[in-house]
Amino acid sequence: MKEYSIRMEKVRQQMRAANVDAFLITTNVNLFYLTGGVLAGYLYIPVCGEAVLFVRRPAGLRDNHIVYVRKPEDIPAILLQRGMSLPCRVMLEGDSIPYGEWMRYAALFPESETVNGTPAIRKARSVKTAYEIDLFRRSGVIHAEVYRKIPALYRPGMTDVELSIEIERQLRLAGSFGIFRTFGQSMEIFVGSLLSGDNAAEPSPYDFGLGGKGQHPSLPIGANNTILRRGTSVMVDMGGNFTGYMTDMTRTYSIGTLPEEAYLAHQTALDIQSETTKTARPGVACETLYNRALEMAKERGLADCFMGINQQAKFIGHGVGIEINELPVLGARSETLLEEGMILALEPKFVIAGVGAVGIENTFLITASGMEQLTLLEENIVDLEKGY
Amino acid sequence: MKEYSIRMEKVRQQMRAANVDAFLITTNVNLFYLTGGVLAGYLYIPVCGEAVLFVRRPAGLRDNHIVYVRKPEDIPAILLQRGMSLPCRVMLEGDSIPYGEWMRYAALFPESETVNGTPAIRKARSVKTAYEIDLFRRSGVIHAEVYRKIPALYRPGMTDVELSIEIERQLRLAGSFGIFRTFGQSMEIFVGSLLSGDNAAEPSPYDFGLGGKGQHPSLPIGANNTILRRGTSVMVDMGGNFTGYMTDMTRTYSIGTLPEEAYLAHQTALDIQSETTKTARPGVACETLYNRALEMAKERGLADCFMGINQQAKFIGHGVGIEINELPVLGARSETLLEEGMILALEPKFVIAGVGAVGIENTFLITASGMEQLTLLEENIVDLEKGY
Repeated sequence: MKEYSIRMEKVRQQMRAANVDAFLITTNVNLFYLTGGVLAGYLYIPVCGEAVLFVRRPAGLRDNHIVYVRKPEDIPAILLQRGMSLPCRVMLEGDSIPYGEWMRYAALFPESETVNGTPAIRKARSVKTAYEIDLFRRSGVIHAEVYRKIPALYRPGMTDVELSIEIERQLRLAGSFGIFRTFGQSMEIFVGSLLSGDNAAEPSPYDFGLGGKGQHPSLPIGANNTILRRGTSVMVDMGGNFTGYMTDMTRTYSIGTLPEEAYLAHQTALDIQSETTKTARPGVACETLYNRALEMAKERGLADCFMGINQQAKFIGHGVGIEINELPVLGARSETLLEEGMILALEPKFVIAGVGAVGIENTFLITASGMEQLTLLEENIVDLEKGY
Repeated sequence: MKEYSIRMEKVRQQMRAANVDAFLITTNVNLFYLTGGVLAGYLYIPVCGEAVLFVRRPAGLRDNHIVYVRKPEDIPAILLQRGMSLPCRVMLEGDSIPYGEWMRYAALFPESETVNGTPAIRKARSVKTAYEIDLFRRSGVIHAEVYRKIPALYRPGMTDVELSIEIERQLRLAGSFGIFRTFGQSMEIFVGSLLSGDNAAEPSPYDFGLGGKGQHPSLPIGANNTILRRGTSVMVDMGGNFTGYMTDMTRTYSIGTLPEEAYLAHQTALDIQSETTKTARPGVACETLYNRALEMAKERGLADCFMGINQQAKFIGHGVGIEINELPVLGARSETLLEEGMILALEPKFVIAGVGAVGIENTFLITASGMEQLTLLEENIVDLEKGY
């Protein structure tokens, strides 16, 4: 299929830049990216010539490029049988596969130098194809439709967990198949986070400021059974996986009216978003966007509660895709230049002590001339007692 | 706390057996096992003397054994400052941490030999403490209570995904914090699987026979929008994470009456369970249980549909714990001997073409004299049109 040839070529560009002969892909995420499906197997991509998909499971697949194997040790002999030469320098997914797997795959090519290919394929994936962009557009529409139902799901006296459960159900009924993929073995998230009141200020073990205590020490993130009370905010940052590609979206709700400072901070978040959309275009460095956002927070006297209080994240956004945290990072020292076709989640947020989190998150496409917003829904704080 | 000293000692026994000086633990699952919480950090366990917990995030923890660090490279100097010697042989979690992390941690101790410690800590975790066993008991009770509600959640005309969504909601309302941990980077599951009709025969990329096509190629497992029809079975194998330790439980339901062969196969599964509970006790090899189960399936002429049709799993059970697939495996060539305190999921299942999956799964504790069942609920096929 043409789409997968385009993606393969994007990966091969990175392989040529790193001067490698081949890439052996074995993780679910990258197999899905390059073949359109997940299987137990090994995709061998030579820098020139046709790729071979070695499959252990499931049984019954048929295609010219598919070869069934019992174990990865069968691969080298088959490559040679097919008239292919073994690589001099081969990439493996060094930031994703466990050490034990790396050693096993490296041993397949004892004469070859092994190179960590994770940064290369993450870079390739950071610029999306037209087909992928269409999947984000569809996801953005469904994501917003589910969020529009949130006020109708609210009942007085509910806890944050109870409201979260009703939103999860709506995401699933709208077609989400649930799984929420993250890059890096340590960041575990179930569907997303819903933060209310001072739980929003609880520091997280992960690299973001607005963590939440969570329901249990084994998953210290998100809602913690806080009762949703008058005068506190409810920040919903939950994700659906409707297409294999995840949009990221946050909206702030309130129970009744919040103190004035919360609205001012929320307006600052909207102003940062607006300023960013004016600044961002291909060729602009990611750090420029973060630095300008931090500057605006400082100008309004809000630097101390920008992206957290007890622990402040040093970024205002990130790439999204098959995983929720793709490249680039809109962070303090990210010199990456924006490119047309990148999909970014932009999330300026503040934490107000005694109230909760306020702010916004939307998913944007970097176009030739700027940013196009893919998650469209009312952006002011919506009172759950009144609805949209 | 005494509980964590007991666990640490279990790990140290394995360290002594492997003749290592130290173990550097960095994954969420093992940090939770050994400290009771998840954080961004590094637990350094010397084989003698006190362990040190190096923490990056969250901020604000306080304890004698906690030292804040900016990066893992700060660890060796701090160990020396505390009068500890650097290890000669150090374990790292080689089957869980990515290659890149292994190289980074190995470089902290350039004079040391590095050893893959994953098998050792999995072995330590396979025999549970009294405190852990109590958590499984609690989980088993809640798990069964949720399953008891399943007939009340069924509505004629529902799809498998729709019924699954209602069960997921009940699991969450009963206290599950959602996340479903698996060992190995390739097995991704969202809450569990619900299989009806011929979807039960769809082969899976994972190492089990009853896969299901799933809703999307990016997650080829479980329900696939099959409408629940008269004369087909509905196998529910879904998990809650109520305590950090997961019980595993399957029940078979029907829409109306099934063909006689389905009830016969189901009865065979119950008979295999019954036979296993009579055979299993400390000192019995895991393969004995699998081989006897396979023999019983053969005796009844059901070998061809035992644990799948198109792809048959070569095991009838597995350890459970913080991860759903812990040690030991009740498989064809597993010589591991059962020990008192192991917690096992036993899951004899059959697939009947045109009908769906039948069979049972329960979680058991290995006691001094046999097996104690922790997931108690009606085991016959329950007609969803009639209820319990």
